[in-house]
Amino acid sequence: MDVVAHTRIVATARRLAAGHGRARDGWGRAMTAAYDWLAVDWSHRRLRAWAMADGEVVDTRETPWGMTRLAGPPAFATAFAALVEDWTPARRPAAVVVCGMAGAREGWHPAAYAAHDGDLRELPRAAVRVPDGAAGFDIRILPGLRQAEPPDVMRGEETRLLGLVADTPDAGGVVVLPGMHGKWVQLARGRVARFRTAMTGEVFAAVAEHTLLRHTLGDNGDDEWDAGDFAAAVAEGRDAPAALLRRAFGLRAEAILNGLAPDLARARLSGWLTGLEIADALAQFGEPRRVTLVGEPPQVERYAAALAVFGVASDRRDGGALARAGLIRAHRRLFGGARP
Amino acid sequence: MDVVAHTRIVATARRLAAGHGRARDGWGRAMTAAYDWLAVDWSHRRLRAWAMADGEVVDTRETPWGMTRLAGPPAFATAFAALVEDWTPARRPAAVVVCGMAGAREGWHPAAYAAHDGDLRELPRAAVRVPDGAAGFDIRILPGLRQAEPPDVMRGEETRLLGLVADTPDAGGVVVLPGMHGKWVQLARGRVARFRTAMTGEVFAAVAEHTLLRHTLGDNGDDEWDAGDFAAAVAEGRDAPAALLRRAFGLRAEAILNGLAPDLARARLSGWLTGLEIADALAQFGEPRRVTLVGEPPQVERYAAALAVFGVASDRRDGGALARAGLIRAHRRLFGGARP
Repeated sequence: MDVVAHTRIVATARRLAAGHGRARDGWGRAMTAAYDWLAVDWSHRRLRAWAMADGEVVDTRETPWGMTRLAGPPAFATAFAALVEDWTPARRPAAVVVCGMAGAREGWHPAAYAAHDGDLRELPRAAVRVPDGAAGFDIRILPGLRQAEPPDVMRGEETRLLGLVADTPDAGGVVVLPGMHGKWVQLARGRVARFRTAMTGEVFAAVAEHTLLRHTLGDNGDDEWDAGDFAAAVAEGRDAPAALLRRAFGLRAEAILNGLAPDLARARLSGWLTGLEIADALAQFGEPRRVTLVGEPPQVERYAAALAVFGVASDRRDGGALARAGLIRAHRRLFGGARP
Repeated sequence: MDVVAHTRIVATARRLAAGHGRARDGWGRAMTAAYDWLAVDWSHRRLRAWAMADGEVVDTRETPWGMTRLAGPPAFATAFAALVEDWTPARRPAAVVVCGMAGAREGWHPAAYAAHDGDLRELPRAAVRVPDGAAGFDIRILPGLRQAEPPDVMRGEETRLLGLVADTPDAGGVVVLPGMHGKWVQLARGRVARFRTAMTGEVFAAVAEHTLLRHTLGDNGDDEWDAGDFAAAVAEGRDAPAALLRRAFGLRAEAILNGLAPDLARARLSGWLTGLEIADALAQFGEPRRVTLVGEPPQVERYAAALAVFGVASDRRDGGALARAGLIRAHRRLFGGARP
């Protein structure tokens, strides 16, 4: 990593700590209790950490330093150092359990994929220790899952699934984890029987930000749109998936000719893509009538509404809580209890 | 436009003129004959000009200064000035007839869209003169076409269609102009009866360059792939269009797990998208069995092969030649003959 990137990460961390910026929660809040260990969820879009003591969350932090903004191991190390800079562990070395993109080939330290159909509760055994990760820390990265046929991979979702199984041992059926790379998982007896990934969120972002539609869709990170518009587009995507590329250009034309509102354009593009994903995935998984939906607001509400367009009911589970539960389970397995 | 952009455009033009860079043809070749007027095709990806004298092309130039690389009117003016810097007109002011994105809202000077169903041969009457376009030039920009229902627009393709009609007065049926924004046109008695646009090329570029697939697809501007792989993917796109987002992620997974070759990955993604476009467009246009295909190699060969997957025959016409023919027709209409 070059010096500029390093400086930028540290400066952002300090600004967040001073109480400015997007991810203000947790930053700048004085720690009252020292932590025993850290649970870390490192995704494409963000880096989130929970400080744990005596089995309880004593603090949380979140930064925008997801994998898409980090180039190579030194950037990950710097982002981690900035994250923990003013956080006090109860002892050194402090245990850290990480899931997600930190274990990718382009991440912090490679954690090879485990076979998808192993017992999820045994997954922590394949965790990898980061050599020279950060002074005073014992950092373990959990592996992702790989499926040979059809070829597919996941990183991060397996820890939510572990959390789900740890929390609800008889969890089964189809589990949906929407996102940049949406995962559809057949869960049975604590194992991933099979899974499929759809690039829905990432294709939306690429089209919204890197085509002429950027003039049409505006820049609304909150995606506050009308639920009815979105649901109508989901149905359109389901009914005529091949029309996607024509409909996408139609947004631009309608904006030029009729002043189409950016929020409506975003609702439609998102709805069409989501309609394609769900239509295909339901066929892949034998048309289930009920699924477990893992995610966080507002995305999880939107997916529940989109599934309802297909007549599919959903039981919602909080993605962050399940990630934390999976990391706690892994910590117990790796470090033998609440204290390392 | 800021100074950096200006300097960059001029520097590129000079480098091209010195015989280096991609668009070497035409640049650096000493002009022997002064030109009467310039025919200019300004697309998203490039700026192409033909120098005309006595009804013949006496020189051609091409630069990568398409609209996607230019921000606002001053950038267009600078790119034009760099294009003509060392080119000698027979007289001042020299006539220039332009089609394409120069007339867009974000272009050089707005040329309002004309109604799509007017006589194409009358289109030049709606050309717009660029005020203070460039000293010593009389620059006219041709309008694009708009369709109210469903909302759609085109810029540049209408001039190819004018060239087609000027060249072949009884041209009719479905005309396909593939590209960044692929156009499907119902042509009848020298008019565009209706048209549809698919964002195929631009979505391919956005996904290939701005998602994690950039690691998988490599950076092969020539797109040299196996014709059989491409045709198989076109059929897959036709048969299961909703699978697009799953298949796209599958490329990444197959690259990680099995070392999928970048060329094969590109052939598949392009084939799937093309399959969606053609399946949808054929349904929109009443399943024609034969179309006129307007484009340039190698894209036009690929589209002919993709159409063949659907059992559709195609008569190929060269897009550059038709654009030039349309501009010549417009010049005659605007300036009353070979000389202004």
